[in-house]
Amino acid sequence: MLSFQNLLESFEKKFQAEIQNIQKTAPVKLYGPIAYSLEVGGKRIRPVLLLHAASLFSSHPETYFPAAAAIELFHNFTLLHDDIMDHAAIRRGVQSVHVKYGENSAILSGDAMSIMSFRLLSQCEPEKLPSVLDLFSTTAIEVCEGQQYDMEFEVKDQVTISEYLEMIRLKTAVLIACSLKTGALLAGADEINCQLLYDFGLSIGIAFQLQDDWLDVYGEMRSFGKKIGGDICENKKTCLLISALEMSDEGDREKLLAWTEKSEFYEQEKIDAVRKIFSGSGAANATKELMKYYHDQGMEKLNQLAIADADKRELRKFASGLLSRVK
Amino acid sequence: MLSFQNLLESFEKKFQAEIQNIQKTAPVKLYGPIAYSLEVGGKRIRPVLLLHAASLFSSHPETYFPAAAAIELFHNFTLLHDDIMDHAAIRRGVQSVHVKYGENSAILSGDAMSIMSFRLLSQCEPEKLPSVLDLFSTTAIEVCEGQQYDMEFEVKDQVTISEYLEMIRLKTAVLIACSLKTGALLAGADEINCQLLYDFGLSIGIAFQLQDDWLDVYGEMRSFGKKIGGDICENKKTCLLISALEMSDEGDREKLLAWTEKSEFYEQEKIDAVRKIFSGSGAANATKELMKYYHDQGMEKLNQLAIADADKRELRKFASGLLSRVK
Repeated sequence: MLSFQNLLESFEKKFQAEIQNIQKTAPVKLYGPIAYSLEVGGKRIRPVLLLHAASLFSSHPETYFPAAAAIELFHNFTLLHDDIMDHAAIRRGVQSVHVKYGENSAILSGDAMSIMSFRLLSQCEPEKLPSVLDLFSTTAIEVCEGQQYDMEFEVKDQVTISEYLEMIRLKTAVLIACSLKTGALLAGADEINCQLLYDFGLSIGIAFQLQDDWLDVYGEMRSFGKKIGGDICENKKTCLLISALEMSDEGDREKLLAWTEKSEFYEQEKIDAVRKIFSGSGAANATKELMKYYHDQGMEKLNQLAIADADKRELRKFASGLLSRVK
Repeated sequence: MLSFQNLLESFEKKFQAEIQNIQKTAPVKLYGPIAYSLEVGGKRIRPVLLLHAASLFSSHPETYFPAAAAIELFHNFTLLHDDIMDHAAIRRGVQSVHVKYGENSAILSGDAMSIMSFRLLSQCEPEKLPSVLDLFSTTAIEVCEGQQYDMEFEVKDQVTISEYLEMIRLKTAVLIACSLKTGALLAGADEINCQLLYDFGLSIGIAFQLQDDWLDVYGEMRSFGKKIGGDICENKKTCLLISALEMSDEGDREKLLAWTEKSEFYEQEKIDAVRKIFSGSGAANATKELMKYYHDQGMEKLNQLAIADADKRELRKFASGLLSRVK
């Protein structure tokens, strides 16, 4: 079992070398934007989860670097294309690819990234490839389905909590789950352990997104890394907004709707007012409860995993790290 | 060995059923545009080539339907995204996907199509999968590289014939070659035969694109299926334009450049004038010669293929069909 930190360092070193290779490949106008989007960083959570899961069942998790890189490439491809669709100008503090290189470049470089992730997978051990490719491609399509629902929610009058949970399951959680299961599959874990890791990842992935929703409202800019209240300003249908619309009394509900309909407002005034309704209506607590529910569901799966208890430490830390930021 | 016609009919029947399934899948706003772009048709050349190549080495080519469908899906994905990048409003006589469904839908549905082609591949025989996935993903990236060069050529002052040939090799020919080789790989052909079929496809694919360039200028609307002179009106850097710029005398060259710089003109007047320069400069003949060269190169590879001569009939017919339309 290897620590996240160790795995992150060894992954990052190899991955940066890979990025340098990509950057030098012709045509540079195709590969340059790919290298740019990859080197900006991110937490590399998915490849680390893949390698960690592999390390639970194999003493040579580094063998699985291509699959880990594939997941990271695929994840970054989705961000790149999502930014075009969402007209997002900034990603991780720098210009998003479509702003820096133009929309056509962003479309085509994204397409190539998605395909490159499948080319990396073809390096997997031949006997593992059918199940790995099946899982990865199914997951990748689910991520597209999640993005589709997310876009539909933007223009939909009413979204229920269960519709929202299904959307974040597809858009966010399945790729976390797939990362863990792919690592386990490659390292030869049995079917039950593979499935338990998948289910752990699914629950933790949902909790992760709920945390993100909560931190947008109640987090600290410094540790969150994004502007606090961004979702509120954009009327994003997060768990908090959906819950508040369901739970608040008539007066607060009308106030909330009025804020979402205003096209001109002082950002801080809107954020403060909406935050107050989120807290008062019980929506904030409901989101925390839901997060805890999915965290606990994940822990239950982790407890059932047939490995030494000490080996579960890192995944427990990862899961509880989610809750600790939410006070 | 099965005829193209037989294979086309059996492929189309199964593929239409597959399209019906896709159309009914939720979210319909993701899958609807995919079904729309697939059912509009096209000649299904690539899946037929795959199945035909398989039929040369196996008596059950229908087993390879998933791979054939994968190639057709991938090809249509590239058209879908190319149409966004090229701002093309019409595809096969109907509205292109980004015009009918909006650009975000076209991006996301295209992404899903590309991934679906890899999911279909995961159904290949496990022992064939590593080589099939390696070939398919490498080819798919080459197609992106080809599209990148094509976009760059639009804004580049000078493009040489060899740069142009490399572009069409990547954008068009490798997928034809990959179709044939994938069929052969799946049906268990040996490495030499697989490579010969690949090389045959590569040469014929290049000849195919050169024919397309030629037919745009000298073809008949009815059989070409596209507006004659479209490339001329758009100043598309085809083999004819590039050759004419290289081969024409100073006077014609200046006339040609003047036509490409005019922003307002009567279409037919421009088409007639440019066509005259293409013919007079020898560019038309040079393009025909080049087409014949690639055709002959392809036939040489086909001749070397270690199968009964009678079994080469359909591929010969396919290749010579190219030349017969060019007079």
